[in-house]
Amino acid sequence: MKLYIVGFGCGSYEGMTLGAKLAIERSDLIVGYTVYAGLIKQYFLDKEYFCTGMRQELDRVEAALEQAAGGRTVSLICSGDSGVYGMAGLAYQLSPMYTGVDIEVVPGVTAALSGGALLGAPLTADFAVISLSDLLTPWEKIEKRLRLAAQSDMVISLYNPSSRKRADYLRRVCLILLEYLPGDTVCGYARNIGRNGEEYAVMPLCKLKDASVDMFTTVFIGNSQTKNIGGKMVTPRGYNV
Amino acid sequence: MKLYIVGFGCGSYEGMTLGAKLAIERSDLIVGYTVYAGLIKQYFLDKEYFCTGMRQELDRVEAALEQAAGGRTVSLICSGDSGVYGMAGLAYQLSPMYTGVDIEVVPGVTAALSGGALLGAPLTADFAVISLSDLLTPWEKIEKRLRLAAQSDMVISLYNPSSRKRADYLRRVCLILLEYLPGDTVCGYARNIGRNGEEYAVMPLCKLKDASVDMFTTVFIGNSQTKNIGGKMVTPRGYNV
Repeated sequence: MKLYIVGFGCGSYEGMTLGAKLAIERSDLIVGYTVYAGLIKQYFLDKEYFCTGMRQELDRVEAALEQAAGGRTVSLICSGDSGVYGMAGLAYQLSPMYTGVDIEVVPGVTAALSGGALLGAPLTADFAVISLSDLLTPWEKIEKRLRLAAQSDMVISLYNPSSRKRADYLRRVCLILLEYLPGDTVCGYARNIGRNGEEYAVMPLCKLKDASVDMFTTVFIGNSQTKNIGGKMVTPRGYNV
Repeated sequence: MKLYIVGFGCGSYEGMTLGAKLAIERSDLIVGYTVYAGLIKQYFLDKEYFCTGMRQELDRVEAALEQAAGGRTVSLICSGDSGVYGMAGLAYQLSPMYTGVDIEVVPGVTAALSGGALLGAPLTADFAVISLSDLLTPWEKIEKRLRLAAQSDMVISLYNPSSRKRADYLRRVCLILLEYLPGDTVCGYARNIGRNGEEYAVMPLCKLKDASVDMFTTVFIGNSQTKNIGGKMVTPRGYNV
């Protein structure tokens, strides 16, 4: 009767909240995307898992709700946060069709925060989080948001900056942002945060457009105050120092 | 020689990451804002604390760097995330004056995520995080960001929506947003997340302007798709359901 929707963070043990760990431990069944479930299986070896592939979100959420409605305690797991581009929204949308399921959303550290920590402190001021995936959002809407965010002098964190079908999207986005922002705007990216192959880089916007990124990369565009301090991306917040 | 900058989340034990807990346990000294340090002291009773009051951020960060430079392991703690309106930026800004300090930023669950989980799933789509505090950011800049964010159809999460000196700020902001957004835009707020007195409410924008909020409240403005589903604030992401 209980469905936890759990954000487990970047995938490292340390990146998980105590609440996420507890929810998974209390569950009879763990439901998730095969690749991301694979990241945390090692910490919860004795659990039953139901995993499906990319773009099968509906199947997963329906299975989780059905099993919870049937009386089991279920954790529907998401990498990062359970809300930010996560499954909590879809679970609530479908929940009226499954009576008696008590949904509890357990938040987690989304990639803007874990990637930001790796890069330094890019998000000390107001910021926008924008996904470049146009599977579920029309590109025109994404582009409009990018143009408005660039004019607002907010820091921007870009999710899903690339995929096989969208190999040139980051370049396209940088060219749009360069219409508003100077080429020396401090930017950076973090890849495989908290996992094997973890890396990050700080660079000006004019170089970012040629950076090679993948779907495990989170990109950061600084605001007009953002600095490179000893190789870290740092946005000051107005203290007189 | 080690300075952890630790985001400990909303203040509940479950809201902390395993990495935050570990960093604090490993530290000889915990430095923080009196009110927020008070929230987590109960979980780390045997530690030495150095706490200062509101607006004494510089004192805290300097003390933390100084103690770390002197050879101790120090945790500079922040509520929510260590980066988002947190102390990581200031620590990096001041760090060149303290040689040999190894800074590690430990991210945490910021109020947009923990408040979002309490409200349901407001942040399933692109969003902006904007603080209404004009102590460190000029009001004109905040207002410009609000106007651009409203035009972008991003969900907006508002931090620091009120204080004694800024009692009418949320009302002012709602009136600005109502220039762009319909009055029935689904909004909500979360207060005292994960603590005594935790509460949340979902309401249309036209009602939000009269809501009573304080500095422990996080406010959410939905996008054009956001719905009230059984009292929860839910932003769908484009799945056909």
